[in-house]
Amino acid sequence: MLKLYFAPGTCALASHIALAEAGAPYTTEKLDFKINQQNSPEYLKINPKGRVPTLVTERGVLTETPAMLAYIAQTFPQAKLAPLDDAFEFAKLQSFNSYLCSTVHICHAHKMRGARWATQESSFADMKAMIPKTMGACFNLIERDMLKGPWVMGENYTVGDAYLYTLTLWLDGDGVDIATLPKVKAHRAAMESRPAVQKVLAEQKA
Amino acid sequence: MLKLYFAPGTCALASHIALAEAGAPYTTEKLDFKINQQNSPEYLKINPKGRVPTLVTERGVLTETPAMLAYIAQTFPQAKLAPLDDAFEFAKLQSFNSYLCSTVHICHAHKMRGARWATQESSFADMKAMIPKTMGACFNLIERDMLKGPWVMGENYTVGDAYLYTLTLWLDGDGVDIATLPKVKAHRAAMESRPAVQKVLAEQKA
Repeated sequence: MLKLYFAPGTCALASHIALAEAGAPYTTEKLDFKINQQNSPEYLKINPKGRVPTLVTERGVLTETPAMLAYIAQTFPQAKLAPLDDAFEFAKLQSFNSYLCSTVHICHAHKMRGARWATQESSFADMKAMIPKTMGACFNLIERDMLKGPWVMGENYTVGDAYLYTLTLWLDGDGVDIATLPKVKAHRAAMESRPAVQKVLAEQKA
Repeated sequence: MLKLYFAPGTCALASHIALAEAGAPYTTEKLDFKINQQNSPEYLKINPKGRVPTLVTERGVLTETPAMLAYIAQTFPQAKLAPLDDAFEFAKLQSFNSYLCSTVHICHAHKMRGARWATQESSFADMKAMIPKTMGACFNLIERDMLKGPWVMGENYTVGDAYLYTLTLWLDGDGVDIATLPKVKAHRAAMESRPAVQKVLAEQKA
């Protein structure tokens, strides 16, 4: 049995969807960021980074979304959530996931998490003001060059779709109009028609 | 034949070392960041992100260091640069690489690349002042919880070692004294005794 630690509204949704799509046996535990539960002594023993997601397996703890997504795809190969038998296609998927974590998520994080990289209120305000521009640029690149359609990798649904969907949920709050991104918009709608996604959204709200 | 686009002093060194360790047939092309060659029309046709590294393969172009490192390890399995037959151990390696790209490299980037996330000189100065603290915190976590020793994954050398080594080269300039990090310091010395690393450092200087 796998156990996923998550908080609503975070990138942990991607791994949560991947687990459901894989048909994996899993339980979840919700952390309350409002009371800083991710930095509680109990949680820091499990994940010393004080972040979500964390996946507890029988072999030990895994963190970092791209690593967890590849792990879920490799551990439940019958779900065909990644091109596991083709190193180049697998690398294309991993490249997409890496871009989401190291560029897109990072841009988004400058809205509320500026204290990771600066100390002054004026810097935080400056960072926040950039969000529509930086997130807009990221998603324009995704729309133009990355999202093949209907899924990220083309005809085959993969863990990259769960990850992309998760980050598209941030667009409204980040001041980017999804109507300007027709492929991304269609992708979000297609994701929300999937039973596994509906199940996970309900689990996160519970 | 693989072709790697790199610039000296960048994270492209990790993939360069991995290619050499793998015994892969490769050529390199050096970009000059001083004349903004990474944003030239010719290069943007190859990599629209305007970044390095880029790996051109017979199947197409790959970007993003963690994806490229896994690709090199999977494509040259006889070099044993990743635990390819164990999804959990592979995920631990990928988690390490993902932390380097999405947390450590990002902290470092706030020294010179603040314009990615802000517009004001005061913000850039604020970000720069944080670098010793944020990079110090990252490397303390690596020293304490991640680097098993002598290599990242323990007894087996992997692509994660090439990546860690690359980022340790930034410590001096980022105001972090490697002498306070004995395992990281020993790792850097062990890397510099490897023939493949010496060969690549010479190629990058040429």
